Amino acid sequence: MERSAFAGDARFFHRTGPHTLAVVAKVAQTEAPPRHLMLHGVAPLQVATAEHVSFLDNRKYADALADTKAGAVIVHPDMVSRVPASAVAIVTDQPYVAWARVAALFFPVPPAVAGVHPSAVVAADAEIDPTAEIGPLAVIGSRAQIGPRCRIGSHAVLGDGVVLGSDCRVGAHASLSHAIVGDRVNVYPGVRIGQEGFGFATTPNGHHLTIPQLGRVILEDDVEVGANSTVDRGSLHDTVIGAGSRLDNLVQIGHNVRMGRGCVIVSQAGISGSTILEDQVMMGGQAGLTGHLHVGRRVRIGAQAGVMADVPAGTEVVGSPAQPVRSFFREVAVLRRLARGSTSAKRNRDKETGPDTDTSTS
Amino acid sequence: MERSAFAGDARFFHRTGPHTLAVVAKVAQTEAPPRHLMLHGVAPLQVATAEHVSFLDNRKYADALADTKAGAVIVHPDMVSRVPASAVAIVTDQPYVAWARVAALFFPVPPAVAGVHPSAVVAADAEIDPTAEIGPLAVIGSRAQIGPRCRIGSHAVLGDGVVLGSDCRVGAHASLSHAIVGDRVNVYPGVRIGQEGFGFATTPNGHHLTIPQLGRVILEDDVEVGANSTVDRGSLHDTVIGAGSRLDNLVQIGHNVRMGRGCVIVSQAGISGSTILEDQVMMGGQAGLTGHLHVGRRVRIGAQAGVMADVPAGTEVVGSPAQPVRSFFREVAVLRRLARGSTSAKRNRDKETGPDTDTSTS
Amino acid sequence: MERSAFAGDARFFHRTGPHTLAVVAKVAQTEAPPRHLMLHGVAPLQVATAEHVSFLDNRKYADALADTKAGAVIVHPDMVSRVPASAVAIVTDQPYVAWARVAALFFPVPPAVAGVHPSAVVAADAEIDPTAEIGPLAVIGSRAQIGPRCRIGSHAVLGDGVVLGSDCRVGAHASLSHAIVGDRVNVYPGVRIGQEGFGFATTPNGHHLTIPQLGRVILEDDVEVGANSTVDRGSLHDTVIGAGSRLDNLVQIGHNVRMGRGCVIVSQAGISGSTILEDQVMMGGQAGLTGHLHVGRRVRIGAQAGVMADVPAGTEVVGSPAQPVRSFFREVAVLRRLARGSTSAKRNRDKETGPDTDTSTS
Repeated sequence: MERSAFAGDARFFHRTGPHTLAVVAKVAQTEAPPRHLMLHGVAPLQVATAEHVSFLDNRKYADALADTKAGAVIVHPDMVSRVPASAVAIVTDQPYVAWARVAALFFPVPPAVAGVHPSAVVAADAEIDPTAEIGPLAVIGSRAQIGPRCRIGSHAVLGDGVVLGSDCRVGAHASLSHAIVGDRVNVYPGVRIGQEGFGFATTPNGHHLTIPQLGRVILEDDVEVGANSTVDRGSLHDTVIGAGSRLDNLVQIGHNVRMGRGCVIVSQAGISGSTILEDQVMMGGQAGLTGHLHVGRRVRIGAQAGVMADVPAGTEVVGSPAQPVRSFFREVAVLRRLARGSTSAKRNRDKETGPDTDTSTS
Repeated sequence: MERSAFAGDARFFHRTGPHTLAVVAKVAQTEAPPRHLMLHGVAPLQVATAEHVSFLDNRKYADALADTKAGAVIVHPDMVSRVPASAVAIVTDQPYVAWARVAALFFPVPPAVAGVHPSAVVAADAEIDPTAEIGPLAVIGSRAQIGPRCRIGSHAVLGDGVVLGSDCRVGAHASLSHAIVGDRVNVYPGVRIGQEGFGFATTPNGHHLTIPQLGRVILEDDVEVGANSTVDRGSLHDTVIGAGSRLDNLVQIGHNVRMGRGCVIVSQAGISGSTILEDQVMMGGQAGLTGHLHVGRRVRIGAQAGVMADVPAGTEVVGSPAQPVRSFFREVAVLRRLARGSTSAKRNRDKETGPDTDTSTS
Repeated sequence: MERSAFAGDARFFHRTGPHTLAVVAKVAQTEAPPRHLMLHGVAPLQVATAEHVSFLDNRKYADALADTKAGAVIVHPDMVSRVPASAVAIVTDQPYVAWARVAALFFPVPPAVAGVHPSAVVAADAEIDPTAEIGPLAVIGSRAQIGPRCRIGSHAVLGDGVVLGSDCRVGAHASLSHAIVGDRVNVYPGVRIGQEGFGFATTPNGHHLTIPQLGRVILEDDVEVGANSTVDRGSLHDTVIGAGSRLDNLVQIGHNVRMGRGCVIVSQAGISGSTILEDQVMMGGQAGLTGHLHVGRRVRIGAQAGVMADVPAGTEVVGSPAQPVRSFFREVAVLRRLARGSTSAKRNRDKETGPDTDTSTS
């Protein structure tokens, strides 16, 4: 099995450049170091050579910095002393932000290739900007609107009336219905947007009666929705994902959820119906929120947390049921202490009766 | 970004009506109030006007009732006194059930548009009722049978031999194989039904050997399967979803699972292979059942619960490992008390050594 | 609703045979019992008749063995005494492994039907082996390579440059990009492979800036990826799934994850970015690993566990936060004891103030 020597395998990625150190430093929004150097690409510290620019952000990998053969390295001022003599240090308080910009200099997002693939099925009254790209076998519904420079992937389905602003990307096999989408929105492959929410009334004899789902989905500007995630449309209100919010893969957003700006929802997290998140809420992987909650601005919810009550702004909660992070770890510590205390007596019993029964992992 | 003034944006929904108050009350299966009123649509309490009918079910939103400008409101007898004078009260013991019926009066499910889209790929020996609708780029396998008034969405794939009863809906990009489906079944976009279950035998040298998966999937009448959920076919027995059961989005159903009638499985829950659920089991979001369990009738399983043992009928369990709800919250309370008790001593230590280390949310 | 009398409904499965007992025993790699018998198919113990071979692996179902009407039964030596006189015992230390082989004798995986469906959209410079099968409406990108006997399902999308070895299967609606795939790899319907990982840098003003994702996905030989699972491509390194590893449905693999050989990842589990799993790690359903961890060889991670720290080889961990299985159940036991102890006092209080408030399941 072949492995890549460094990032950006030419089989899959188109690289620009080379670029001078001066251009790279400028893109990184830092002072240009007083050296002339041509940089041909990017690579991780461990495999970079003299023609590459690399970076250090997570200090867990600081040892790799001292050993790197990279020509240039983007680092925080605290780490400059560990940059080897063979490398130019590109110094910034925000090395990861600078890295995002430099990597995008070498590997910009490919532009739309204007035009509708002949295999696509496009309604006669859909309005598609001539600069947009419609991929093979895409289906565009009646009265749908697709703005400039949008890229619609293979097999993507845009239902009747769906609106996309400019510069959106819709991945392969994604489906959108009952949705109004802003600019620069990125919908990954396999995403489901706008289907009916999970709404029904149960009659006294146990029959579940569907509640018509009459709201929409609003994806504001710069939203990203990760692969195979699902965002249900509202029942009476709209489901709204605020500008700049990012959802990872396999995330579930229930009907009528209203999410503020700049939220981050990590993989496999789920938000039940009618819950409201203010701006910049962070939600860890596999965490869950029950319905009809209010989660304040800048709340941080730990991975696998189960939130069953409102959370005030600025709080960090973990656990299931969720509680403030400090209380949670205090409880963990208390319980471990108690269990250790109970061990010596138990160990004697086990000698006679055998140990605890383990559980299966699956 | 535009927002909808009220539910049922004409861009996406076709509304019938207007309807008289008498008709609305009749559909709601209540006594008609002695007033003449034309109702043009439905809306949430907060934005409804005199031409709308609205409803109150969740008492959390009771304040909105007192302030509503709706022309008519569906309410429980207990709430009649809070309906403002400007609104007609449509009174019923089952306001949410009545709402389901009234909303469907104004916004019925669109009927199938009979015919096969010319871009669909249909096997010559498939049997498709002439009243069924086959969407663009759908693929219908050999000997598949599709009953009257079914609606098959864009890109849906029905494998060889799959049978659908009448009035089923299959969403965009859903795939079904090895499946026998009843009437009025609703399969959402991106659903995977009938693929091989996760079955293998591990040889002594660690090689995983596939077990042929030789069962089917049976979806009984009125089943709903939410977006991007997966239902594996049985290995030797069938996987069965009982009549009227509803699965939310991103749910996993393992091979040989047998689910009774009227069960409700909330988003991201998972049921491992060969587990049996009796009728009307409720399973909260992100809950999990290990394999080969028996879960009795009307059991309620809390969100994020992890069930590793059989559950007797009528029980409510929560936690991981799951236990009766009352015991669970008693343990939560005991632990919080203990942790608080340990705090004062600890606080003194922290002054010298620093606080607990927090964890990251992702 | 019809039910199958036994496994392998002819509507969906093609059966070979009949086979003699001698052939069946040979395929099972056991001594042939001294009997002549023709076997026509396979069936579970409960419904098998004299013409079927069946098996017992999970002793939970041992009662069914005593009552079976099967003609032959594959069993462990310990269970031979419980095989009824009417059945021939096919005895092996590895009954489940033998079953895998015997079931595959009767129901082999259907071979590829060589050729490209006329509705597929294939780039002129894609290299497709003439023995490969390309299904209806599949899309094959520029410079993609597809090896001998691969089966590409309906609507599958292989992006530019993707490489598949020999004998791979790609299910309906799966999408692969930026991926190098070995031999005999099985990608289930709806799988997402190679899309951008969840990588962004947050500027001081809260704006999330995308980090270009410049790595690939490497699926080594004999890997399986379950329905609707997602495997993101690396950011700078590759994401690697080691030979023979099996992922169940709805699993999430973050960017730069490196998984060893023969790992088993059960449904709805998630692995965050840059975490490393050595060989033969087992991960239970709905378990989660945070990023940048190292998980040693043969580690077992329980269902719903939340792992936030490195795990040494050979360990079994459960709980959230995860800990060794023995400590976990000791804590469970201690807490239950304490809660019971606090009950009698509390019960008296409840008589005056009412019981605990329960939580909703959804």
